[in-house]
Amino acid sequence: MRGKFITFEGCEGSGKSTILRLIVEKLKEEGIRFILSREPGGTKIGEEIRSVILDKANTEMDPVTEALLYAASRRQHVQELIIPTLNKGISVLSDRYVDSSLAYQGGARGLGIELIAKINEPATEGVKPDLTVLFDINPEEGLKRIAQNASREVNRLDLEALDFHKKVRKAFLDIAKSSDHFAIIDASKPIDEVFEAAYKIVHKTLTE
Amino acid sequence: MRGKFITFEGCEGSGKSTILRLIVEKLKEEGIRFILSREPGGTKIGEEIRSVILDKANTEMDPVTEALLYAASRRQHVQELIIPTLNKGISVLSDRYVDSSLAYQGGARGLGIELIAKINEPATEGVKPDLTVLFDINPEEGLKRIAQNASREVNRLDLEALDFHKKVRKAFLDIAKSSDHFAIIDASKPIDEVFEAAYKIVHKTLTE
Repeated sequence: MRGKFITFEGCEGSGKSTILRLIVEKLKEEGIRFILSREPGGTKIGEEIRSVILDKANTEMDPVTEALLYAASRRQHVQELIIPTLNKGISVLSDRYVDSSLAYQGGARGLGIELIAKINEPATEGVKPDLTVLFDINPEEGLKRIAQNASREVNRLDLEALDFHKKVRKAFLDIAKSSDHFAIIDASKPIDEVFEAAYKIVHKTLTE
Repeated sequence: MRGKFITFEGCEGSGKSTILRLIVEKLKEEGIRFILSREPGGTKIGEEIRSVILDKANTEMDPVTEALLYAASRRQHVQELIIPTLNKGISVLSDRYVDSSLAYQGGARGLGIELIAKINEPATEGVKPDLTVLFDINPEEGLKRIAQNASREVNRLDLEALDFHKKVRKAFLDIAKSSDHFAIIDASKPIDEVFEAAYKIVHKTLTE
């Protein structure tokens, strides 16, 4: 049986990465086989591309350049890791996937969902998640969380204006509305509640 | 007046870079204003992308990933350097441009000219060279030259099979045939003859 492909999306400060760590721990305890990966990155080449994208010194980066770099990292991820792993019957959990590009570059940077979908067509070649967990939070609250969290370095994307993050959220919710594989989780709730809600749907998808 | 955009293309070992250096020297002597650039690269971000593409350790690189990385570097080049420079009335000479992607990825790697053109559409946004100088050489001879040239490190692309380089040459000649801005230079001739032929057409384009 082919493995399941589950992606995790959310605005900055939605607690996505923290919750994902908790989910991973509990799945391991239950003996469920999976690979945890992330975008941009997930492969050696993808991680090299990631460091170019997230380099705070690269302030001159054009938005379309950025979109093409995300797509390049994604292509490598899909071909080298996601497809072969799913074909072995092992599930893949990915911290971000194509919906992040659609929301960030397409929606918030104003390049348009259509252009970003076009750029990503050769990257994903139709590989779609079985489930996408969207951690939804009001950006004011999300950015406040980041500022309070000293253990997490603030990166170039965090420094974008609040308005940008509002657009990201709106785009994510719009994309979720027109898709059939999204589970929207209210990430403003206490962390144990958010975790329980997310774990339940992830566990169900992995074991059904 | 808008500057002129001139690109230089050729197979490995065609002497392109050497001749380009000679052209640059002579143009400087004549006091002609221009900027010399290259692809992949040409900008700080582009050079970072270049080092990912040409890293010999990245043997796992998927051909579409490679094509997307070239396009990302190109987009940054076009937006940050080429368009602003041409708009200032200064000409740009670039060691490689989109025709290299069409020939290498589209033709030789078998991804098809159409897919590569599609990937590069958001990168170039219609910025076309006024002149493309193609240094044409039989690949056997080109690779022999590289092997003899100890001052030039052999990179990952050089290591590809001879058959690959034959396909690159064929693709370049096909592209040139269907374009109106190509000058094909026989690069198997002695270096001073190749230089004279190339310089003549470059000088004419820059000063007309």
